[in-house]
Amino acid sequence: MTALNMEELVALCKRRGFIFQSSEVYGGLQGLYDFGPLGVELKNNIKQSWWASLVYDRDDIEGIDASILTHPEVLKYSGHEDTFTDPMVDCKSCGERFRADQVPEYCKEEDLTEPRQFNLMFKTNVGPVDDGTNFAYLRPETAQQIFTNFKNVVDSTSRVLPFGIAQIGKAFRNEITPRNFIFRVREFEQMELEYFVNPGSDEEWHDKWVDLRLSWWEEQGIPKDKIELLIVEGDDLAHYSKKTVDLMYKFPHGIEELEGIANRTDFDLGSHSKNQDQLSIQANVAKNSSSNSKLAIQEINSKEWVVPFVIEPSAGVERAFLAILNEAYTVEELNEGKSRVLLSLKPHLAPIKAAVIPLKKNNAELVDLAVKLKNELQNLKLGRVVVENTGNIGKSYRKHDEIGTPICITIDYDTLEKGTLTIRERDTMEQETLDMNNLKDYFLKIYQN
Amino acid sequence: MTALNMEELVALCKRRGFIFQSSEVYGGLQGLYDFGPLGVELKNNIKQSWWASLVYDRDDIEGIDASILTHPEVLKYSGHEDTFTDPMVDCKSCGERFRADQVPEYCKEEDLTEPRQFNLMFKTNVGPVDDGTNFAYLRPETAQQIFTNFKNVVDSTSRVLPFGIAQIGKAFRNEITPRNFIFRVREFEQMELEYFVNPGSDEEWHDKWVDLRLSWWEEQGIPKDKIELLIVEGDDLAHYSKKTVDLMYKFPHGIEELEGIANRTDFDLGSHSKNQDQLSIQANVAKNSSSNSKLAIQEINSKEWVVPFVIEPSAGVERAFLAILNEAYTVEELNEGKSRVLLSLKPHLAPIKAAVIPLKKNNAELVDLAVKLKNELQNLKLGRVVVENTGNIGKSYRKHDEIGTPICITIDYDTLEKGTLTIRERDTMEQETLDMNNLKDYFLKIYQN
Repeated sequence: MTALNMEELVALCKRRGFIFQSSEVYGGLQGLYDFGPLGVELKNNIKQSWWASLVYDRDDIEGIDASILTHPEVLKYSGHEDTFTDPMVDCKSCGERFRADQVPEYCKEEDLTEPRQFNLMFKTNVGPVDDGTNFAYLRPETAQQIFTNFKNVVDSTSRVLPFGIAQIGKAFRNEITPRNFIFRVREFEQMELEYFVNPGSDEEWHDKWVDLRLSWWEEQGIPKDKIELLIVEGDDLAHYSKKTVDLMYKFPHGIEELEGIANRTDFDLGSHSKNQDQLSIQANVAKNSSSNSKLAIQEINSKEWVVPFVIEPSAGVERAFLAILNEAYTVEELNEGKSRVLLSLKPHLAPIKAAVIPLKKNNAELVDLAVKLKNELQNLKLGRVVVENTGNIGKSYRKHDEIGTPICITIDYDTLEKGTLTIRERDTMEQETLDMNNLKDYFLKIYQN
Repeated sequence: MTALNMEELVALCKRRGFIFQSSEVYGGLQGLYDFGPLGVELKNNIKQSWWASLVYDRDDIEGIDASILTHPEVLKYSGHEDTFTDPMVDCKSCGERFRADQVPEYCKEEDLTEPRQFNLMFKTNVGPVDDGTNFAYLRPETAQQIFTNFKNVVDSTSRVLPFGIAQIGKAFRNEITPRNFIFRVREFEQMELEYFVNPGSDEEWHDKWVDLRLSWWEEQGIPKDKIELLIVEGDDLAHYSKKTVDLMYKFPHGIEELEGIANRTDFDLGSHSKNQDQLSIQANVAKNSSSNSKLAIQEINSKEWVVPFVIEPSAGVERAFLAILNEAYTVEELNEGKSRVLLSLKPHLAPIKAAVIPLKKNNAELVDLAVKLKNELQNLKLGRVVVENTGNIGKSYRKHDEIGTPICITIDYDTLEKGTLTIRERDTMEQETLDMNNLKDYFLKIYQN
């Protein structure tokens, strides 16, 4: 279980169409990746699993999807303009620029400049006048627009505390030295929940969300004993946070953050609110003279305005992808010195839900029946089902082991004559004969529970 | 059917949480919108319906999901650096800048400057050195990365012609004068299919894709007789296109393009390819000295390298959203001078699939049973189901009519005693009594067909 090193995963991703380097035909762009035919399915399945567990399965969370281009005032009052920086050094010998904690060994200490703060936000000019005053940021996190939409969501849904707003979407960080495949990249997707609670109940909710998130990761194939809890302290604690718990996972390149769960207090809503002095804001916020909205909620009984505290479980889709892939990856020894690459993905995450394989490539009866069965399973709307029409059963099994397809369904002459199929299970490689009429139920049992 | 004007739709979108102006608390950003709790569901359902119809239901299309930040060479060789422009004029009287064909009436002809070409692509600096040479574009269309990933997809999937690559994702255009709500915006999502065919079969495939796309729109609630086909001619035809057919729809603000279906010939693959002179490229492409890849496919029998022609159905998610919302919107006269707002969305697009309503808000037995039934329906994984616990049945019905929920399920004392539910249908307002044990099948009949 798990890959020996990152190279194994990178090779699988390229070979099978999970991930390619972006703009590769022009030499690529550092820290940017494209998701291929299987990658896009795995990625979407991870996102859907997160969304369903919060917005659908619970009754206290709403979703939103805000724009990437963000008003500079949002990122001024959030503190990002001042603090979203990394220390950067130049090497006078090789002429390259590095993050201060990521200088390669070949650069000598005495050749390095003093560290300077470098803001990680991407900027772009908006509108036809380019004089430096009309710009937007590419959001560095999805969280801020959850805060700025707080009142709109409350007004349109009549929510009361506690409740959450969830968002999945792209965020951008101009990393000085992106590295470790899709772990540290310049463009990535976040899955962020901002869960609003009454001040005073925040610590209890923080603990609860750490537990809930650990359970979610377990359902994605990352058991609790593979995750260490790290309480972030000192300078590492973000300016908005009262307490942050990082879920640390052993990636192929080392133990790093998989998800952070922060108690952001009332810092963000307080920072973006007008009439701050009429609200009992506990965090230390800058005076806001630009906001036109009171980002607070009225207590039902007392009618008092409350600025909620916020618990934020924040996960990156690419890091989830990498961790899930790593946990699922195995090279398994078989008989006679042979081996197979196996991706033991949880069924709901598998890019392909089932492969229907006609025994012969050129037999119209077998192929037509395979297509018919594929369509029946596809119509259940539980993910992608394919017809694997290569005429080579063994090769098809090996391919689908490697891309994590939970079941292969073989259509042969018995299917035509007796209506029986062969189902071959990915992890055990066991085969069983099934009546064609029971296929739908067999499939539903795996994917709808 | 359809809204009287855009204002009606804008008001519904804000009131019910479909769409908010982006960064509204700081006065908003022109041409940028955020999708609220219901908007994100409708938008995701549109995207899923498009994806399923192409990548899942057919057997000849793969999906990808590429990065937004794009290497400048990609958009140089695609022709965007030179031609992706709009003519812009300044009004010397009011000091504003407009697209030449969108100058408001209050600006006098004699005060306008001569039109200048303005490139619509957003740029941003990448990496720590900001000297104007290290930048990327925010992609102006998703199509280009389908072309640049052509070889990666072919190599990892062993596809042969004809086959397609589909992508859904954000694209950005620095519109000089964004307008008409979400119709013309600066940040939007595209659903683009590039369908690769043998040269010579392109015209036939072009016709076929126009038909297929019209059928898809019909399934989304936009009947064929509401769409006019416009053959784009003269200067309006893009530089890469042999023929483009626009699907024109009567939006609240006028008849405009809903989707364009272009025959891009071998222009794009030819433009991004190395060794162009060894390939029989028919389009007029600029010499490419930067590409490291031959974007062609080997004919199985003759082993000859073919640069495929491309048919591109390209639709915008926001325009689809607006058209679908507009077609579904009705103000219906009821008895006694009353009326209701009704959103007759197709069930698979409805943001909420069913609302389960306990008759009394404070009756634990009723509420618990409602939550139990909600969870059962939710577990079928066919979209969002909610418990509507306001204690006011009439108000709940009106709300769910307005947001397009196909069915409301009321739990009352008969449910506790006899196991029967009341199902109320959105469009007809008819109510029927159903045995609780048949609810799952009733629901599946609507959503899984």
